[in-house]
Amino acid sequence: MGSNRLEAFSDGVLAIIITIMVLELEVPEGHEWSDLWDATGLGLLTYLLSFVYIGIYWNNHHHLFQICDEVDGGVLWANLLLLFSLSLYPFTTAWMDESELAQVPVVAYGINLLAAGASFYVLEHMMARLPGQRDKLREAFGRTTKEQLSLLLYTLGILLALFTEPWVGLVPYVLVALMWVVPDRRVERYLARQAE
Amino acid sequence: MGSNRLEAFSDGVLAIIITIMVLELEVPEGHEWSDLWDATGLGLLTYLLSFVYIGIYWNNHHHLFQICDEVDGGVLWANLLLLFSLSLYPFTTAWMDESELAQVPVVAYGINLLAAGASFYVLEHMMARLPGQRDKLREAFGRTTKEQLSLLLYTLGILLALFTEPWVGLVPYVLVALMWVVPDRRVERYLARQAE
Amino acid sequence: MGSNRLEAFSDGVLAIIITIMVLELEVPEGHEWSDLWDATGLGLLTYLLSFVYIGIYWNNHHHLFQICDEVDGGVLWANLLLLFSLSLYPFTTAWMDESELAQVPVVAYGINLLAAGASFYVLEHMMARLPGQRDKLREAFGRTTKEQLSLLLYTLGILLALFTEPWVGLVPYVLVALMWVVPDRRVERYLARQAE
Amino acid sequence: MGSNRLEAFSDGVLAIIITIMVLELEVPEGHEWSDLWDATGLGLLTYLLSFVYIGIYWNNHHHLFQICDEVDGGVLWANLLLLFSLSLYPFTTAWMDESELAQVPVVAYGINLLAAGASFYVLEHMMARLPGQRDKLREAFGRTTKEQLSLLLYTLGILLALFTEPWVGLVPYVLVALMWVVPDRRVERYLARQAE
Repeated sequence: MGSNRLEAFSDGVLAIIITIMVLELEVPEGHEWSDLWDATGLGLLTYLLSFVYIGIYWNNHHHLFQICDEVDGGVLWANLLLLFSLSLYPFTTAWMDESELAQVPVVAYGINLLAAGASFYVLEHMMARLPGQRDKLREAFGRTTKEQLSLLLYTLGILLALFTEPWVGLVPYVLVALMWVVPDRRVERYLARQAE
Repeated sequence: MGSNRLEAFSDGVLAIIITIMVLELEVPEGHEWSDLWDATGLGLLTYLLSFVYIGIYWNNHHHLFQICDEVDGGVLWANLLLLFSLSLYPFTTAWMDESELAQVPVVAYGINLLAAGASFYVLEHMMARLPGQRDKLREAFGRTTKEQLSLLLYTLGILLALFTEPWVGLVPYVLVALMWVVPDRRVERYLARQAE
Repeated sequence: MGSNRLEAFSDGVLAIIITIMVLELEVPEGHEWSDLWDATGLGLLTYLLSFVYIGIYWNNHHHLFQICDEVDGGVLWANLLLLFSLSLYPFTTAWMDESELAQVPVVAYGINLLAAGASFYVLEHMMARLPGQRDKLREAFGRTTKEQLSLLLYTLGILLALFTEPWVGLVPYVLVALMWVVPDRRVERYLARQAE
Repeated sequence: MGSNRLEAFSDGVLAIIITIMVLELEVPEGHEWSDLWDATGLGLLTYLLSFVYIGIYWNNHHHLFQICDEVDGGVLWANLLLLFSLSLYPFTTAWMDESELAQVPVVAYGINLLAAGASFYVLEHMMARLPGQRDKLREAFGRTTKEQLSLLLYTLGILLALFTEPWVGLVPYVLVALMWVVPDRRVERYLARQAE
């Protein structure tokens, strides 16, 4: 089976997730800059963070299916698992905001990030299972050190939130985002080699 | 007429249905794990169940249009009937949650599941009506025992909810989901045979 | 310019409109069938009516762009005008529901229907303006009697709501929907002739 | 990398933004025309304005990717930056409405417009950076006077809102919209030249 419709459906879900988070932002009651800050302050920052994460997943998803385009039933379900994890971002983001970074919500957000990261890992493995795709993926991505480091950093963030101040846990979460925002040249180099 | 746009439109509707259900999850007021459980507990489980159902319909819809890609006016309306039934899932799911599995809402949820199952059945028949597609569909799907069994199980769930405890009705509903999550090899085998 | 992206964007907007209307349905507070009826009764019926209308527009839009696939700036704006009119359906539907069919909301709903009908007419004319497309459209659709009759019936509904009981105005609105639900063979016949 | 999926994802996000704004419109409590005006009056006008803006961005985005269809990591992020700015329109529009055009919300809306305009400018530059695309873009768009004038007018609107009456700031905002609604013949002429 080709991957066109899987990509279209995933685009739809990701587009909605990234957009409905803005509906969680409360419109300020007053009309001054300070009211804007009071009503959204933290919310605007965590909205930005979650927007960047969804953007990263969209980019990585896009790259993955540029290299391989064969899917089977197992890939469809791994993809739905990823979309399910990502669909919880607006919920865990909103809880973390409303609690003003209390411990449990920060840990819950981290678990959500970890679940999405692990789902993406599962999706890559399900894709690599299909004949002929393992080599392509290995050649394009090399080792999956970056993926593994992300999972480690999420875990570190959860532990820091549990055993130090909750906000400290956000530091590794933000680090992961920064690490992926830097454009990933691996895929572009691979596609250039293929074109030659 | 080709089916591209019908597929794109259906993808859009399914993507929205699967995503807006998360908007129904209430953000907990407290900041402890117990608050998360109190606020969402059951909601998270039924969200998962409905997510899986929509995922199954998306998979089946995808498989169906991989085999046949001719549509006519009758197919367009059968497809809209299916989308209408599915669009009610967030509503019936929310009612069942808020009632904490009271009898009537569990029955209403079952009727919604039954209506969607029957609509899919109608859609398959409308597709099979078009010249040349009946044979393809029969060769790919064999007999539609699985579809018929699903309708029977939904009906059983409704009857159990009516005449025993409401939560007992959920057992057959969950069974149907499990039955379809197991990847359906019929379509893959058919496509492999075609490729040879 | 080709029409692919215009179709994809319109599909997205129509998919959202058709789906968010269900968010307007209030979850009943009680757990009996009578509570379901009290909470949604009329809402469920008007949701169905508006769902059918959006389905009709999607079908007609689909047919139109099956025959012609050249667009220019004027077509883009006529299409946005149509999407704007349709995007108000959830709003006017909700107002009509909450008022339990009071006069002004029924008239407002009719004006909304009329605006969408007129926008579609404008869109057809903008498409027919492009070289080579007028003949194709004329051959496929013949005369646009059905479109003109719809506009007349909407106007009749508005007048009936104004000068008799409001609910009487709904009769011509429903008639238009029924008139279009009956599959429109014109396009299929045209495409069959082309294929020969 | 080709731009198909970037376009599909952007279409999805823009379709949602343009549609969820209507959810912000409050359903009137009374059933007279005056209630409609009281509940939405200003809201309907600013909804229309923001709808037109999103429509303009969709048109321009569409034109841009008709001319060039090569993207890289930098373009993906510039596009996400644009989508982020646009995703805040429903929020800033709602604040401006609820404040009945108070000074700070009108300025905040202007900053949002300016941010989106600047992001589009960045996107054009990221596209022009790719080999072979600079010449195509220059030939199609000529000088980017219109883009620069828009940014100037947004800034003027912000300054007018700050130093005169807030509503005066809306005048340049509306001017920009009018300037772009007039169909942009540059791209059509370019595509016609290419076809010859």
